[in-house]
Amino acid sequence: MVHHQNKAIREGDNPDLTAERVTGTFDTHSMAAQIYNSEAHARRRREITEIIAKRPELHDTKPFPFMTREEKILESSRKLTLITKHMNEIIEPNNSNEMFHLNNEVLGIEGHPMALHGIMFIPALTAQASEEQQKKWLTRAINREIVGTYAQTELGHGTNLQNLETTATYDVATQEFVLHTPTITGLKWWPGNLGKSSNYAVVVALMFIKGKNYGPHTFMVPLRDEKTHQPLKGITIGDIGPKIAYNVTDNGFLGFDHYRIPRTNLLMRHTRVEPDGTYVKPPHAKINYSAMVHVRSHMITGQAIMLSYALTIATRYSSVRRQGQIDTTQPEVKVLEYQTQQHRLFPYIARAYAFVFAGAETVKLYERVLEEVATGNVSLMADLHALTSGLKSVVSHYTAQGIEQARMACGGHGYSQASYMSEIFGVAVGGCTYEGENMVMLLQLARYLVKSASLVKTGQSSKLGPLVAYLGAKSDSTSLIDRTPTTGFAEYVKTFQHIARRQTLKAADKFFGLMEKGEKRPIAWNKSSVELNRASRLHTRLYIVEAFVRRVEEVADPRLKEVLTDLLHLHVNYELLDMSTYALEDGFVSSSQLDYVRDQLYFYLAKIRPNAVSLVDSWEFSDQELRSVLGRRDGHVYENLFAWAKASPLNKTDVLPSVDKYLKPLMESARASKL
Amino acid sequence: MVHHQNKAIREGDNPDLTAERVTGTFDTHSMAAQIYNSEAHARRRREITEIIAKRPELHDTKPFPFMTREEKILESSRKLTLITKHMNEIIEPNNSNEMFHLNNEVLGIEGHPMALHGIMFIPALTAQASEEQQKKWLTRAINREIVGTYAQTELGHGTNLQNLETTATYDVATQEFVLHTPTITGLKWWPGNLGKSSNYAVVVALMFIKGKNYGPHTFMVPLRDEKTHQPLKGITIGDIGPKIAYNVTDNGFLGFDHYRIPRTNLLMRHTRVEPDGTYVKPPHAKINYSAMVHVRSHMITGQAIMLSYALTIATRYSSVRRQGQIDTTQPEVKVLEYQTQQHRLFPYIARAYAFVFAGAETVKLYERVLEEVATGNVSLMADLHALTSGLKSVVSHYTAQGIEQARMACGGHGYSQASYMSEIFGVAVGGCTYEGENMVMLLQLARYLVKSASLVKTGQSSKLGPLVAYLGAKSDSTSLIDRTPTTGFAEYVKTFQHIARRQTLKAADKFFGLMEKGEKRPIAWNKSSVELNRASRLHTRLYIVEAFVRRVEEVADPRLKEVLTDLLHLHVNYELLDMSTYALEDGFVSSSQLDYVRDQLYFYLAKIRPNAVSLVDSWEFSDQELRSVLGRRDGHVYENLFAWAKASPLNKTDVLPSVDKYLKPLMESARASKL
Repeated sequence: MVHHQNKAIREGDNPDLTAERVTGTFDTHSMAAQIYNSEAHARRRREITEIIAKRPELHDTKPFPFMTREEKILESSRKLTLITKHMNEIIEPNNSNEMFHLNNEVLGIEGHPMALHGIMFIPALTAQASEEQQKKWLTRAINREIVGTYAQTELGHGTNLQNLETTATYDVATQEFVLHTPTITGLKWWPGNLGKSSNYAVVVALMFIKGKNYGPHTFMVPLRDEKTHQPLKGITIGDIGPKIAYNVTDNGFLGFDHYRIPRTNLLMRHTRVEPDGTYVKPPHAKINYSAMVHVRSHMITGQAIMLSYALTIATRYSSVRRQGQIDTTQPEVKVLEYQTQQHRLFPYIARAYAFVFAGAETVKLYERVLEEVATGNVSLMADLHALTSGLKSVVSHYTAQGIEQARMACGGHGYSQASYMSEIFGVAVGGCTYEGENMVMLLQLARYLVKSASLVKTGQSSKLGPLVAYLGAKSDSTSLIDRTPTTGFAEYVKTFQHIARRQTLKAADKFFGLMEKGEKRPIAWNKSSVELNRASRLHTRLYIVEAFVRRVEEVADPRLKEVLTDLLHLHVNYELLDMSTYALEDGFVSSSQLDYVRDQLYFYLAKIRPNAVSLVDSWEFSDQELRSVLGRRDGHVYENLFAWAKASPLNKTDVLPSVDKYLKPLMESARASKL
Repeated sequence: MVHHQNKAIREGDNPDLTAERVTGTFDTHSMAAQIYNSEAHARRRREITEIIAKRPELHDTKPFPFMTREEKILESSRKLTLITKHMNEIIEPNNSNEMFHLNNEVLGIEGHPMALHGIMFIPALTAQASEEQQKKWLTRAINREIVGTYAQTELGHGTNLQNLETTATYDVATQEFVLHTPTITGLKWWPGNLGKSSNYAVVVALMFIKGKNYGPHTFMVPLRDEKTHQPLKGITIGDIGPKIAYNVTDNGFLGFDHYRIPRTNLLMRHTRVEPDGTYVKPPHAKINYSAMVHVRSHMITGQAIMLSYALTIATRYSSVRRQGQIDTTQPEVKVLEYQTQQHRLFPYIARAYAFVFAGAETVKLYERVLEEVATGNVSLMADLHALTSGLKSVVSHYTAQGIEQARMACGGHGYSQASYMSEIFGVAVGGCTYEGENMVMLLQLARYLVKSASLVKTGQSSKLGPLVAYLGAKSDSTSLIDRTPTTGFAEYVKTFQHIARRQTLKAADKFFGLMEKGEKRPIAWNKSSVELNRASRLHTRLYIVEAFVRRVEEVADPRLKEVLTDLLHLHVNYELLDMSTYALEDGFVSSSQLDYVRDQLYFYLAKIRPNAVSLVDSWEFSDQELRSVLGRRDGHVYENLFAWAKASPLNKTDVLPSVDKYLKPLMESARASKL
């Protein structure tokens, strides 16, 4: 067989799909190294995939869409046991990237019974338990002797921690905290794996000592008997019921009825309560700031991966699906031939690459900031926090949009759960709400932008953080995007900077102006919030473009550089057209320049076409991981759709019980009444 | 109790919700008459709701999200039997509006085992069976002695009927048609209720007589034994498996293995095959044109209703949910206070009203066109067909977007199936794909627009249809939206006309220009298709605005007129801002005018706030119909979320089987290995 650049080609594949792969101009393994930030990790991903492929006990026993929640949880628990047992044979257990890949392949994206144990419980103990407490609990948690989660949000209360209702009242006499849920709205609600799996939780409650409210604190709380797993006395606990997705995770509720825990269960790394009730303050107020930044940085990569799942499925299927004619003298064409289809998919392929590059940069930035914080320099933390708030919001929004576009691009079969698209959407779109609701996140970034705008307006631009330094720069009078060599992106970046700067300063003006007219600050803020959020989005999208540009500049391999440059061209023109109102408004971009942008957009749609399948193949998702009949690597869609349908639960019997019980009698009585 | 304008107020309701209703300035019953096009029907809806409320056997035995597909189908079949039996006591059986309401309340939106029987099977027999055939089959179908569906699309083939693979080959010797499925891709795929419920189907197949292909024809085909309901010999049939939504409907597959039916099962109203194989041509080629227009006209109303389900849920919940502070000296506020929340919901409330008014106008137009067709005047049919293609696409797109915005506006609890939001989304978003995929639909409209543009360009504007007459008019040089009294909408309409005209003529120019440069017509068309679709959307959105304006002008009641005028203000400003690129590009709208548009937008968000709950209440959806814990009329959300969660299937046992089988042993062995 000829040696192709696209490494996904196999004998016996659907020739329509192979034809698309043969036209690929770059090595997909090398591109995977770009996507996953190192040749080593990209290779390890493939090796892990191969090991899993050879172990049938790690495969799904049947398609997820055919299982009830109970069956999915049982299946997931079975695999979790196996993974725990054989982890060392498959991955380097301390490598979180390898663990992430193993989980995605074997357990899938719908959650599992110990998801929060690793993501929240262990980190919470690590960050907040004293050394003595860690010896007692952390070791047991790491060994999986106990299963835990982190319980913060309540039925009636989200991010506003001061307003939580769960109380922990110190009883000096017994040296115990009494946990109590005073109302239904004070029930802990939503924590993953709280409902059924966990026997411990780190619980956030308002701490009261001698009548004084010391605000939210964290406590290590036993929930269930370690032997029987029955809920302990004084604990009301259960699953909150089915959700859009993530149904393998038992999100739970938790109520306390004057439930007592020892004083020493208050997590005491940064704070302390003496036996007599004396409170010892934590040294820093915002000790947990960086944990949020950490989670959000990694979320961006996770979202990019889910977007790419959907794009892989849709792009492959579009190469196999033939429908309609462009030239009526010719046979039906692949739907990927249609410009409307390319316009649905390719700009999102570009976004997925942009997101994963921006995510990698953010993780790196986070690591740098952590080092600086260790040396006492916290200057960049605020910038980074603002940036990740915006990225989390913008990336999760476009990811959800892109998955839906990809699903609809698959026509009717995209609507079938055989595509797995709706599950991918359901999981990904959760990212718009968890870890900070998107509107709230954008407003957090806006607060930072308004502060920065205020520096600009008071002539203190030199004090601007590096991520907002452009706010203090002077704009050119007009954009030059159509007058530079097509290989340079500097004029595009300038244009995006101009747009973000103008909207930021304008929205800040609105806010300041309302206060000058006599509105109270919070009212002025609320009245400006839609315009402020627009500024936050534009600022974030500028950062994403810049990260994409920086990455492309770094790439050495000329074949990769060429296709990534095409993708970046597509990206900047698509984004600019999408936000062109802001560019046109003050004449920075002219009408004829916008026509140029459109021409470029359509030019690059066509130019990317021969690489489209290779660009999605480069993410190297196995069929096991994708779980999609439409997205199969081999392109043999139709026979497998038929096999999938025949295996679905409703086809176990030819005549449904509902037909015997209701439909047949209905028809029979109609026939009889006629006689 | 005081007599309030909002008729949904009851004693004992959540006072936060009552407070919102008390501020309503108009009679919600009167508004319902606007929404449902007549006082009589609005009243009948309420009466039907009351009858159903008093019959517990017509209520859900448990929440739908707690049921498997099999349970849902069983439950639906149970109710279907009851409805069939008691129909005359509840509704006027020949009134399709009343039937629609009854189905939504009792059966719900997820489909039912006889959905296609009424929507497709009976209409197909009515339109295509001869009188003799109707006597034989139609009467039996209407009496429900048999259950049927309509089978057209195939696994590998959608709208392109000429490329279907299923064949019906005439055997002169036995006077039979032999139905055959030559390949897997030729399996009938997707028809609702084909899989399990139907014992008959009207099947579309390519008809071959003496070796000649006569193209697609319809046949009445028995699928299952009438007594046993077992599939007949030569028939392969089953359910296609779970989907995003509509899982109470058994969408099915169907294959034929040289399956014989009598010659007389060819539906012969318009076409005939003699015993000797002589083919008698139909008089008209496009006999089914109006059926599509009919379905699409009604789809628009159905989509508006689903959008309003989601908005009702989100707006009520936003009046009850308190989160965060605007003024930190004050208690937590209703999330409806936030401008960002208003901006998420209110423009979609306006769109829902706009859609239902446009839908009603289209149905009326359809009825007028039908009358004209009866007198031989088919001039308006092409206009109407183009219009409904565009409306179907634009309305279903924004409906899906709006439902998702409404769901996300509910924060975490929107993600729970207790909100029922994801099911509403899943059902509604199907409308983007079925009855003509949206991109294809927009291109159908574009064909009509390009024809119209070509009339304009050749000086034949007088020949333009009434719906595109504006394409031939001359634009003013600039918009005057900010210079007219605020009560007039003429300048806005002119602006939307200018935008739609400019894009239509520009996209048509692109298409014509490519041909002039030597591209073949179909290639030129494909290369212009994204721009053409943009024109189709703008044309359609113009029509929606105009329909809204016309309706508001008709309203007599001054209280209704005032609030609908506010809503229309919100609508035109929101839409104009959303498409402002097109308005700015040629300077028709200036930057300062766009600032005016933004100010108007925020002004009307605030102005509508006191009527927001009344505007959604006016749709008069009962709790039974909404099936949403978050959307309850009484606003008692939290205690009912708790009750719902406790009743969910996972809480049947304290310790899940998966814990006993896997999680407990996992922890036990970890503890043991440490000893």
